Amino acid sequence: MRNIALTIQFDGTAYHGWQRQNNAFSVQQAIESALSRITGAPVTVTGCGRTDAGVHALRYVCNFLTEARMPAERFAPALNSVLPCDIRCLAAADVPKSFHARFSAIGKRYRYLIDHAPVGDVFLRDRAWQYRYPLDFAQMQRACDAFIGKHDFAAFCASGSEVSNTVREIYSLTLERQGSLILMEVYGNGFLYNMVRIIAGTLVWVGSGKICAEQIAEIIDKRDRKLAGITAPPQGLYLQEVLYPERML
Amino acid sequence: MRNIALTIQFDGTAYHGWQRQNNAFSVQQAIESALSRITGAPVTVTGCGRTDAGVHALRYVCNFLTEARMPAERFAPALNSVLPCDIRCLAAADVPKSFHARFSAIGKRYRYLIDHAPVGDVFLRDRAWQYRYPLDFAQMQRACDAFIGKHDFAAFCASGSEVSNTVREIYSLTLERQGSLILMEVYGNGFLYNMVRIIAGTLVWVGSGKICAEQIAEIIDKRDRKLAGITAPPQGLYLQEVLYPERML
Repeated sequence: MRNIALTIQFDGTAYHGWQRQNNAFSVQQAIESALSRITGAPVTVTGCGRTDAGVHALRYVCNFLTEARMPAERFAPALNSVLPCDIRCLAAADVPKSFHARFSAIGKRYRYLIDHAPVGDVFLRDRAWQYRYPLDFAQMQRACDAFIGKHDFAAFCASGSEVSNTVREIYSLTLERQGSLILMEVYGNGFLYNMVRIIAGTLVWVGSGKICAEQIAEIIDKRDRKLAGITAPPQGLYLQEVLYPERML
Repeated sequence: MRNIALTIQFDGTAYHGWQRQNNAFSVQQAIESALSRITGAPVTVTGCGRTDAGVHALRYVCNFLTEARMPAERFAPALNSVLPCDIRCLAAADVPKSFHARFSAIGKRYRYLIDHAPVGDVFLRDRAWQYRYPLDFAQMQRACDAFIGKHDFAAFCASGSEVSNTVREIYSLTLERQGSLILMEVYGNGFLYNMVRIIAGTLVWVGSGKICAEQIAEIIDKRDRKLAGITAPPQGLYLQEVLYPERML
């Protein structure tokens, strides 16, 4: 049995997220049916994590076990010839038996894109949060530092999530302006359900004066979801990169 | 009667081009029905030119006559509240009675985008020509100069076009590489039917060795469509800007 890891890119607009579901089409389902078609056997794929409907990925990682003898480098072109055009396989590689796309991951990078133009760019309508009200960008930048480090991020986790440990470490959180775009990049060891979108929504609340930059540390401390900002919409979110220990992928 | 000019942006993916048609949905039809709704009277809009199905516009210009008393600056927000989300009105302005979006134009700028990655970017699938075969970029750049100036561009006009005068002037034609993207920008006093797409297709033929950079001048001279390259696909083309005499718009 071989263990193969795929790096894939997808435009999440048309999908109900990564995870296979009964009543909606998911990215996982598209990958599994493409893999079954090219290997001639049923395939179950393990993803590096769930994504919500409408969320995008630049380099999502998943893995699967197969008896197929096709060389690893043939998988990407073969998959791309059968996958829908909003999902592309960028690379495929044989990985150690112990590799697990989710449990082996040691870090993730996400991007969140805000289109802060008076009239939202038509080309970004499914690919950014189109927010046209005034934002104090300097205040938003000042608010970033409080997120960095190891914290209990319970206030930044969607209610209803069942994880027991809400402590995560954020290694970096940056905001950059490119014309009328605001690009947030966050890098951490892992993220709670909706955490990146709640951070983005909270930074926009700071920018619009609903929360002070100085309050962030306190909001984190209080562990109360209601104190943080809104959950920013899914279409601005991109899984950018998943990091694994050296020589694993 | 007032004459009002609109600057609009559209993602052409879902439309059968600018021009109103009986059996397909066009951008013109979307704008006219939105304007009729907000002014309460039928409106006919004059566009700055036709665009093909799938072609995009960053700043398309059109104008219309109206008795409406709404201040010009109210038109953009009013239109954007009723237009489909792949068409946005960026600006509206009162213009002289003599202004005609097409006949008053003195120049146009177009962009053509080629995604030259081994695996096409999913986010560009409807917004660039995804061309993955080798290209000699230096040769493509060398070929640009021959297009500049006043020429009879009959070889770069879709056959079946009925224009009598095929002389046009190109002021500039540049190619730039940004990562795996190739961005062509062309600025001229006017363009024949499919002319920008045939120039893009011809440059790609130069890049792939099917035509030499030195042959371009001869191809222009011979006025034979069959000697030029293919018509590049519509989804890479963007109308970038339309120029008018000072103080007209």
